[in-house]
Amino acid sequence: MSHRWAALAAALLICGISMPATSAQNPKVGAGRTAPSAQNRLVIQINEDDGKKWMAVLANIRNIQAELGKKNVAIAVVAIGSGLGMLKADSVAANDVLDAIAAGVEFIACGNSMQVQHLTADDLVEGVKIAKAGYVEIMKRQQAGWIYLRP
Amino acid sequence: MSHRWAALAAALLICGISMPATSAQNPKVGAGRTAPSAQNRLVIQINEDDGKKWMAVLANIRNIQAELGKKNVAIAVVAIGSGLGMLKADSVAANDVLDAIAAGVEFIACGNSMQVQHLTADDLVEGVKIAKAGYVEIMKRQQAGWIYLRP
Amino acid sequence: MSHRWAALAAALLICGISMPATSAQNPKVGAGRTAPSAQNRLVIQINEDDGKKWMAVLANIRNIQAELGKKNVAIAVVAIGSGLGMLKADSVAANDVLDAIAAGVEFIACGNSMQVQHLTADDLVEGVKIAKAGYVEIMKRQQAGWIYLRP
Repeated sequence: MSHRWAALAAALLICGISMPATSAQNPKVGAGRTAPSAQNRLVIQINEDDGKKWMAVLANIRNIQAELGKKNVAIAVVAIGSGLGMLKADSVAANDVLDAIAAGVEFIACGNSMQVQHLTADDLVEGVKIAKAGYVEIMKRQQAGWIYLRP
Repeated sequence: MSHRWAALAAALLICGISMPATSAQNPKVGAGRTAPSAQNRLVIQINEDDGKKWMAVLANIRNIQAELGKKNVAIAVVAIGSGLGMLKADSVAANDVLDAIAAGVEFIACGNSMQVQHLTADDLVEGVKIAKAGYVEIMKRQQAGWIYLRP
Repeated sequence: MSHRWAALAAALLICGISMPATSAQNPKVGAGRTAPSAQNRLVIQINEDDGKKWMAVLANIRNIQAELGKKNVAIAVVAIGSGLGMLKADSVAANDVLDAIAAGVEFIACGNSMQVQHLTADDLVEGVKIAKAGYVEIMKRQQAGWIYLRP
């Protein structure tokens, strides 16, 4: 059993992803990756720049936290490609993303997508993290036991 | 090993989800969650109110049952948000959903989505189950070993 | 432990899928399913006949291979329904699919979808594999430890 824990610990260590661009307010992915007390961990992928979809997903997240209790569930939202649009500081979803971050939800931008769209960390909502490749981040989370959801 | 079975049993117990609205014909989620003989378990998520997509997914399900044998695969379809539209008793997919239920497929409506859309159990195809939060249902199924598919 | 390996071996054996149509250039699914040295295995599902989406996914795959190293990641793309369009020999993505195959990526067409669309193996890009049911293929890959991504 102990050797399975070692494998898990190794998997978590591997998850420390290098950052293509950093700024003071955008913390490193991996830092708070696992809420220690969270029994349930969800990694949610969004690829669409669709305000209605984002609002629905943010409402879903509030429902999940309400049903399970905030401290019993860790939630990470990974935005890829057009999905980055709603993580911009001036997006219609910006305030709701800020509220969700305050409620313990992680938001992670795909660094490769940021490069294509000429976005820097300063363009994003404060507190959004950055991973080099969004899909690698999702892969590593799943490998570490996170449950994948694709709204 | 026995202690892993205990953990699985516990996980299955946790899955008994409370119901926001019940009616005589809409059975409780969790009741028949695991077909005891099913070696393969699939939880399929649908978010779209798109007749063509639903018909394709229902055809896919028939193909899966034909390939693996009905008794070797358990299939649960979770409808969230707009996806609820096709579970309404008067939808164009209603008869095909009924046929699929008769063929052993579970259909589960997201209770939170029902509330937003002012739907009650009586508005849905007979036999459709209800979970409080669709994504929590999908999470719990995955935690219990179900394979996630997002058509 | 040895008995867990036996279960895995059995699962891999089950994966040898029968082919609805074969041709000289379209190899059998299952043949090279697991790159022996790959520590990470990704099964990516595409259902859309959307050139822009395919180009993005192919770019994502290149990024994943660049970040992890080609020999450290096995990638299989399963195309279902309309997703088959981009695997046709005359599609706008054909050359990029060929390049990806040369870079070690597997592409697998859903045989049931091919039948509906009256496609034969000869209509597809050279090297594309065929599974009977795309979703069964994805299920089996996940059961064998592959990580599921749905762009």
